[in-house]
Amino acid sequence: MPTAGFLVIGNEILSGKVVDTNSPFLAKELRKIGVDLERILTIPDEIDIIADEVRTMSAIYDYVITSGGIGPTHDDLTMDGVAKAFGLPMVLDEDLCKRIEDATGDHFNESMRKMAILPKGAGVQESGDLWFPLICVNNVYVLPGIPRLFEAKFPSVAEQMTGIPVQLKRVYVKTFESEIASYLHDLLEDFDELMLGSYPRMGEEHYRVLLTLESRDMGYLERALEALLSRLPAEIVHKVE
Amino acid sequence: MPTAGFLVIGNEILSGKVVDTNSPFLAKELRKIGVDLERILTIPDEIDIIADEVRTMSAIYDYVITSGGIGPTHDDLTMDGVAKAFGLPMVLDEDLCKRIEDATGDHFNESMRKMAILPKGAGVQESGDLWFPLICVNNVYVLPGIPRLFEAKFPSVAEQMTGIPVQLKRVYVKTFESEIASYLHDLLEDFDELMLGSYPRMGEEHYRVLLTLESRDMGYLERALEALLSRLPAEIVHKVE
Repeated sequence: MPTAGFLVIGNEILSGKVVDTNSPFLAKELRKIGVDLERILTIPDEIDIIADEVRTMSAIYDYVITSGGIGPTHDDLTMDGVAKAFGLPMVLDEDLCKRIEDATGDHFNESMRKMAILPKGAGVQESGDLWFPLICVNNVYVLPGIPRLFEAKFPSVAEQMTGIPVQLKRVYVKTFESEIASYLHDLLEDFDELMLGSYPRMGEEHYRVLLTLESRDMGYLERALEALLSRLPAEIVHKVE
Repeated sequence: MPTAGFLVIGNEILSGKVVDTNSPFLAKELRKIGVDLERILTIPDEIDIIADEVRTMSAIYDYVITSGGIGPTHDDLTMDGVAKAFGLPMVLDEDLCKRIEDATGDHFNESMRKMAILPKGAGVQESGDLWFPLICVNNVYVLPGIPRLFEAKFPSVAEQMTGIPVQLKRVYVKTFESEIASYLHDLLEDFDELMLGSYPRMGEEHYRVLLTLESRDMGYLERALEALLSRLPAEIVHKVE
């Protein structure tokens, strides 16, 4: 199955000044299209750290997505980090520079030109209605950090990914997690391919634990669910969905 | 300055089923006490991955905090991962087991006993009003994933940390980021110790960019702020706070 890593570049998140909403958005979207998100990593705006992590993630995962650090100021270092990760020089993309000039008109200046300096050979792709294109270097998609732009740009990435969606069943259980642990253990003995999650919930009126059963094979998932429900005492099951 | 890494252990976050609120909470709290959070990493519930990342973070940062994976079920693997990180055997802590028995009464069973099996030599410390203690292995604090418990337990960790709080000034600017980039560049030439952030904001009525100036030295910070304000055209500054 295709895998992905997400690299969040931003001192503002590490210092608690901004809440990262791109990670939960991306996790949900990748899930829908069936790409396994295996790691979310938030790091500071430092070229060498960005370069190291981009290089590592690019080698391990099918897709790498980055968020943040692509604006015109001194702390926007993502492109430099990606270039360094792959040993590429940074070069001015004349077409992109022209596009930025056209889009910004009188506001155009030297610092905006910086946004057209890309790792050599970077893919520059149209991205829906957005005037700024989607930039891609090898398997690394470089997205903006501003949530509105990140979310607007992601569909252009998604259409280049292929996955098989994961199917999910939820079982809400009325007892404590400790009281069903042995049932879960036994279920996994018989269904070792099942992805089985057990999440205690505090403050819910009707249940204490949410169980999630997941598989990309609906038949397998239904057999596992049936097996679990046949073993759990019926009176502790609040709801199945 | 003391540094910290945060390791979030949870398939439920990577698969988009649960939004991680512990990271923004922790980022804000560490900031208040003056500990630099340098990395937030979310990984799956897998022993070897947990072990690798705990080992790496423990060597790099002064403090490591983990979230999640310490309950009684099959997918609670954090303690095993921490033990493996340091090559420690897992052993039953008799006192903790007794405490769990007392706290859970009739609900006590074999799976709860699992929660008293800890890496050998782990620190077991009282934690405010919570009956379950704070577990610490070397410089790694192992916290629960449930936000209510994570937040209730964190003060016991915080009181063991020493830091110097970072001072912050904010400047709200009315123009585009690209138009102030050169001022920021020049400011950093004169104040190379300044932590300077530039964050474009969409949809705000009165400003387009939030600048953050930070330092642990209030005098230095005030001098940098004064220098910036003396250089920026007064009419583009919306507010300073």
